[in-house]
Amino acid sequence: MQNKPDDSKLAKLAKAWWTTDIIDISPGSIRMRGYAIEELIGNISFPEMICLMLRGERPQPGELRLLEAALVSAVDHGPQAPSIAIARMAATCGIGINGAMASGINALGDVHGGAGQQCMELYAEVAELCQEGMQVDVAAVQVVEARMAQGKFLPGFGHRFHPVDPRSGRLLALVQEAREAGVVSGGYADIAIAITEALATIKGKSIPMNIDGATAVIYAELGFAPELARGMFILSRSVGILAHAWEQTGQGGRIKGPMPPAVPYTYTGPAPRDL
Amino acid sequence: MQNKPDDSKLAKLAKAWWTTDIIDISPGSIRMRGYAIEELIGNISFPEMICLMLRGERPQPGELRLLEAALVSAVDHGPQAPSIAIARMAATCGIGINGAMASGINALGDVHGGAGQQCMELYAEVAELCQEGMQVDVAAVQVVEARMAQGKFLPGFGHRFHPVDPRSGRLLALVQEAREAGVVSGGYADIAIAITEALATIKGKSIPMNIDGATAVIYAELGFAPELARGMFILSRSVGILAHAWEQTGQGGRIKGPMPPAVPYTYTGPAPRDL
Amino acid sequence: MQNKPDDSKLAKLAKAWWTTDIIDISPGSIRMRGYAIEELIGNISFPEMICLMLRGERPQPGELRLLEAALVSAVDHGPQAPSIAIARMAATCGIGINGAMASGINALGDVHGGAGQQCMELYAEVAELCQEGMQVDVAAVQVVEARMAQGKFLPGFGHRFHPVDPRSGRLLALVQEAREAGVVSGGYADIAIAITEALATIKGKSIPMNIDGATAVIYAELGFAPELARGMFILSRSVGILAHAWEQTGQGGRIKGPMPPAVPYTYTGPAPRDL
Amino acid sequence: MQNKPDDSKLAKLAKAWWTTDIIDISPGSIRMRGYAIEELIGNISFPEMICLMLRGERPQPGELRLLEAALVSAVDHGPQAPSIAIARMAATCGIGINGAMASGINALGDVHGGAGQQCMELYAEVAELCQEGMQVDVAAVQVVEARMAQGKFLPGFGHRFHPVDPRSGRLLALVQEAREAGVVSGGYADIAIAITEALATIKGKSIPMNIDGATAVIYAELGFAPELARGMFILSRSVGILAHAWEQTGQGGRIKGPMPPAVPYTYTGPAPRDL
Repeated sequence: MQNKPDDSKLAKLAKAWWTTDIIDISPGSIRMRGYAIEELIGNISFPEMICLMLRGERPQPGELRLLEAALVSAVDHGPQAPSIAIARMAATCGIGINGAMASGINALGDVHGGAGQQCMELYAEVAELCQEGMQVDVAAVQVVEARMAQGKFLPGFGHRFHPVDPRSGRLLALVQEAREAGVVSGGYADIAIAITEALATIKGKSIPMNIDGATAVIYAELGFAPELARGMFILSRSVGILAHAWEQTGQGGRIKGPMPPAVPYTYTGPAPRDL
Repeated sequence: MQNKPDDSKLAKLAKAWWTTDIIDISPGSIRMRGYAIEELIGNISFPEMICLMLRGERPQPGELRLLEAALVSAVDHGPQAPSIAIARMAATCGIGINGAMASGINALGDVHGGAGQQCMELYAEVAELCQEGMQVDVAAVQVVEARMAQGKFLPGFGHRFHPVDPRSGRLLALVQEAREAGVVSGGYADIAIAITEALATIKGKSIPMNIDGATAVIYAELGFAPELARGMFILSRSVGILAHAWEQTGQGGRIKGPMPPAVPYTYTGPAPRDL
Repeated sequence: MQNKPDDSKLAKLAKAWWTTDIIDISPGSIRMRGYAIEELIGNISFPEMICLMLRGERPQPGELRLLEAALVSAVDHGPQAPSIAIARMAATCGIGINGAMASGINALGDVHGGAGQQCMELYAEVAELCQEGMQVDVAAVQVVEARMAQGKFLPGFGHRFHPVDPRSGRLLALVQEAREAGVVSGGYADIAIAITEALATIKGKSIPMNIDGATAVIYAELGFAPELARGMFILSRSVGILAHAWEQTGQGGRIKGPMPPAVPYTYTGPAPRDL
Repeated sequence: MQNKPDDSKLAKLAKAWWTTDIIDISPGSIRMRGYAIEELIGNISFPEMICLMLRGERPQPGELRLLEAALVSAVDHGPQAPSIAIARMAATCGIGINGAMASGINALGDVHGGAGQQCMELYAEVAELCQEGMQVDVAAVQVVEARMAQGKFLPGFGHRFHPVDPRSGRLLALVQEAREAGVVSGGYADIAIAITEALATIKGKSIPMNIDGATAVIYAELGFAPELARGMFILSRSVGILAHAWEQTGQGGRIKGPMPPAVPYTYTGPAPRDL
């Protein structure tokens, strides 16, 4: 600031401030990843568009089938999921559907929405050992034992509500189909299965893979970065968040709280006192 | 509260507090709109799932094609759209991708994300006059003149950047195809065209339909409520918001502001003073 | 865009894009409303700073006392207020305290956080009639009757939980003190009392003023715009939102939903079916 | 769920789901930390209330003076701070002031709003070594060298815009005053100064303490947990966010982007291509 840049320099800085590979716009023209929007409309499906925007290229047909499956699987888990409850509550507070969705989506953090991303990182750890020449089952045992020794939670396995998650088996079966068709290598499916077996052996009981473990296999097989696994989960769960916010709008209610007003909460603080 | 309800009453109230038509969950089972999730996965596409969640039933194939087109058309409009810029800036501030997306999606309010919804309400106004027996072109002129007499903005028409919006013509052509195939009635397309013509006559120059005007035709033809037009726009634009937040993450930057720091803003307040 | 502006024009446009009366920054110097930050720190209180930032000038001492009272009164209304519940739930989802606060604050919309703003608009309606020469009690009856004839909710009066709101009487007493000390005119207090009386007469029973009605008197007496009444309420309630989010963090819990998982919600949708 | 709990158990679970030390409400009564709201209103200042809500007890007068100073110091850093720019942009998109504030506050994450919290953790690291008997200057050198060896950023020191931060000296002077008055021990001020000196020696040039370094001293001296340093920063910055969102509302503008539309962004993606 002391040596104030001249106008030419300022203009150059300003033009270079926002740069993107994604979209090129000029009056009358919009191109995503090089394709004209008017050619994309009607010629590619919405999930293909998602892939084009995030990976830069369209998916192969077999890849698309897996991507659709992962996106379909995670749309909703009911009004007791905090993201859904938040959106439903916010919808009664006099903000638009965008605001209700934003408050809910915002809660899809490391704990609520991050297991898929964390599970991809877990798989990557095993994959790295395999690339160094270790057998996948040995690598899985090593990684699982190390995590458990540190008292760490194992993302992608076990579910606090479902003894067996009805989504994961179906998703893995689709990965298997895709593998047989040569669409994906299946290496991450092997890793996920090896972890399941390592867990069962170490714990002495079956801790089945959950939806995050299964979608992590798909996103890894499709070459997405772990952080995008969370992004994809958000795109998927946004559908449920919208559906519930909209349903709540229809049900009415003004300032709906988490429980019926007649159910008292528990106060545990100081007894009445004066200043 | 004075007459405290007993436990049986409290339990009943609590169970009835959250009710939903959308999803039924019990341990090991998840059903959306009656369908088991393991049957949905792999058998319906993601946009079909969106429709199932929001309308309660799957779309017909021809409907699906229109829905896909509308969802594809709105994913992005570049880093100078505030929703996109907000998400990119937020991504440099040390919050997760969920937070960056939430801050951006939150901005899709009445002005930035609401034109489609408002345009559906405009079309509905004309449709109501037609149902009372008025010709569509007469009704369009009446409604447009009434709005203009009140100095109101006409949602769905004109664009501050594109002289002709490259998306709307293509979308309308798909509606026309669907109409010829008997998929939709086309009544809302007629209304939109009548409004375009009324505007041109009244203004003395062409004010072409924009993307909001065209997607409003599609959502109206598919029977969605106006508020869901905004919901659909949000689902679509979320893809662009995610893509840009993710790209910005890759570009790095810490606490990226709206303009390069060397470009000064203009201070217009009081001169330096003392308390 | 067709006639691309040259660099000098671009630089000028960029510099004029963000303009503010609030703050002037240069390397080593920060001035708010003309005052150097190092002079403000330690010499004015936080609520004085709030007033300086929002009104452009510091409050008079008597004004400050009223502003403090209004800010103190609204900090919290317990975990069943959706803004508080949302922040507590979000705090368990693995997002920072900023995210938990944002999701909660976002819900302070027209219904949950807007009553103070709406009540100021109600008072302004009566004030306008008084300025035209009508007696305040006559004006109050006219406005209340008109609202009730339209089936409209009367913001600022009645409370779904408190038969008598313990905050409003105390706040009004402080306004009365300030009036006697010549700090404020008290015109809005008269309007609020006239509305209370009009309501009691028309409804045949007392519908006491609530916190929004009382803080609206204070903000109106202090000359704030109605939209800032909501802004002030948000600043106040943010304290409670932070306190609860922080307490929940200490209590632990992972992905805490609105009710205990064992309390089932009610599913009312289609019976099980196949695709 | 398999063994469904009976109503009495459900009621008990529901009542225990939300527990709080902060607030106790019953019809006609609101008590925070044991104090009746009608006694708090008019008798304690807003910052005292902040302290009561967050620490459970009111501050001593000398503590209050420090808390006020910290809260005053951080309210704003101009429209190029992303939290402020986001709120200003959001305010033009047709969402309420609550939404504009939420989108901005949400961006106060680890990078944008977290330096104070991180700096408190840095101080705590040095404090721990001192408690083990190490001299503060030795401990500071050890901690700074360890961080620099790991290539880590040192929160609380240096500023990308201000060669000398005008806020930190003033804040430290107030801490010194409080120390001389026996209000605080000053141990954290010693640590902060030792780190400043260690940094200057190791780097061979002065890297002055910034606002986060100085407010971290205050919050540590007052006994707040590091995460609350971020919470306090958010309460403070919310004032600036509100002031700017409100100013932007007054300036008008519809869908304001980060730069003037005439300033083009840089597209770096694929050349035009066909599907």
